[in-house]
Amino acid sequence: MHDTGLFKFTMSGWLNNPIEGVLLDITGVLYESGEGFGTVIPGSVNAVQRLKDAGIPVRLVTNETCDTRSAVVKKLQSHGYDVCEADIFSPAPAMVALLKERGLSPHLLVHPNIEGEFSSLMKGKPTCVVIGDADEAFSFANMNKAFTILMEMEKPILFSLGYGKYYKHKGKLQLDVGAFANALEFACDIKSEIVGKPSSQFFGAALQDMGITADKAVMIGDDIVSDVGGSQKCGLRGVLVRTGKYIPAFENHPVVKPDFIADNLAQAVEMIVNAEKAKKT
Amino acid sequence: MHDTGLFKFTMSGWLNNPIEGVLLDITGVLYESGEGFGTVIPGSVNAVQRLKDAGIPVRLVTNETCDTRSAVVKKLQSHGYDVCEADIFSPAPAMVALLKERGLSPHLLVHPNIEGEFSSLMKGKPTCVVIGDADEAFSFANMNKAFTILMEMEKPILFSLGYGKYYKHKGKLQLDVGAFANALEFACDIKSEIVGKPSSQFFGAALQDMGITADKAVMIGDDIVSDVGGSQKCGLRGVLVRTGKYIPAFENHPVVKPDFIADNLAQAVEMIVNAEKAKKT
Repeated sequence: MHDTGLFKFTMSGWLNNPIEGVLLDITGVLYESGEGFGTVIPGSVNAVQRLKDAGIPVRLVTNETCDTRSAVVKKLQSHGYDVCEADIFSPAPAMVALLKERGLSPHLLVHPNIEGEFSSLMKGKPTCVVIGDADEAFSFANMNKAFTILMEMEKPILFSLGYGKYYKHKGKLQLDVGAFANALEFACDIKSEIVGKPSSQFFGAALQDMGITADKAVMIGDDIVSDVGGSQKCGLRGVLVRTGKYIPAFENHPVVKPDFIADNLAQAVEMIVNAEKAKKT
Repeated sequence: MHDTGLFKFTMSGWLNNPIEGVLLDITGVLYESGEGFGTVIPGSVNAVQRLKDAGIPVRLVTNETCDTRSAVVKKLQSHGYDVCEADIFSPAPAMVALLKERGLSPHLLVHPNIEGEFSSLMKGKPTCVVIGDADEAFSFANMNKAFTILMEMEKPILFSLGYGKYYKHKGKLQLDVGAFANALEFACDIKSEIVGKPSSQFFGAALQDMGITADKAVMIGDDIVSDVGGSQKCGLRGVLVRTGKYIPAFENHPVVKPDFIADNLAQAVEMIVNAEKAKKT
């Protein structure tokens, strides 16, 4: 455990370089999922406000694909967060933009809530498959449909909206899109293109929006691979929080070593804000 | 294509070594799956009989886990095959034996038709998960249940009854157990233990039953990886047939090169029987 009592005297290494922007995961960092809108994580609303007050820009980078961005904003506002759609980077809008750019027509295996976002692109025979966290829609019939469409393509193209292993839903761990993407990849002998965390384009878009380079930014999340490992690969510092789907085994992950492990967002933000204040004085 | 007209004068390399036993895949080699019992593949009933008449023992090695062995025998007999349960090597009985040997109690994600075979082993809290071709039972809820049980184990143990990518069902390709095993493996960061083709123990059991070594045996199947690649790894010769789930891409597989590609079982058997006859004269 990091001894925050020592902080005032010896600044942790991860705080030495300037922090000019912070990326935050949403679920498990700002609120815990659960019935209805879930429950806010104590101290997180205030933490986001403290960053803004300190002049440190914040963007929310989420692999949430069970809700549209406007639904996510409503949920966050109900918890007291001061956020708008433009603050949120989520896979579906990025996917729509990429499909338009490449002139592809998708077959969808995604949550019914976000199907509408793709409606203008559904023209004729599908030329790719887009898989997202489809939840109950991950039926055998739907998996087979996606598989069959891929097998009929000369060069199958599979996009995965994020690539998570699992997440916490109503207090229980639940399989995420990465598991089902793996099933299709194995069956079709292909690799999916990931749109969302941990892809570098995705982190890059949020950094570009803040106008800063990766070495000036910190990502804070509860997913050791997508949040921490993914951001570190792009040159950001990756902080793991002990909330959300965190399990102690993350602290001994064979590959990913977080730059810091905080009990929660509030603790991480307190350290960041204090460090930046100290640099200015 | 192999020119069988030349056969009498130049014997193909794969026929040079003695063939003292033949292993056959069932679905896609003896019959095509379909409504009811499916349809027999022309020439296959006669081919099996020709091997027996030539004194070459035959065993059926199948990854079939949607039916018990007795149901498979009934199906084969209805098509005119002269076979009994002892001729058939299938994953479920091998799995039951292995679970007894290791004292494990399984959580099952298998086809309802074979659940009964495991009933004597279902005692208390599961200590492993067994996944088979569960067909419609591969629901999101059942996948999550298996995932959750694995995550609750200190050292998760996952057995996969075969490891196929897909198979042909009623004329359509359908995802096989390997795809869903991959999903659980990815989510839990584990590897499954395969019981069935292409595991070497499985081929070994059939060879042992015939009392011959791998170098004296030929495996004939329609699955380039499980049948051909798997048997070759064990030292058998692997013959691919252009029936069942065969697709032309199998002939240019990046890793597996069949010892021979036959139009169907009848062609492969004709070559084997003629070659063995020629060696004796």
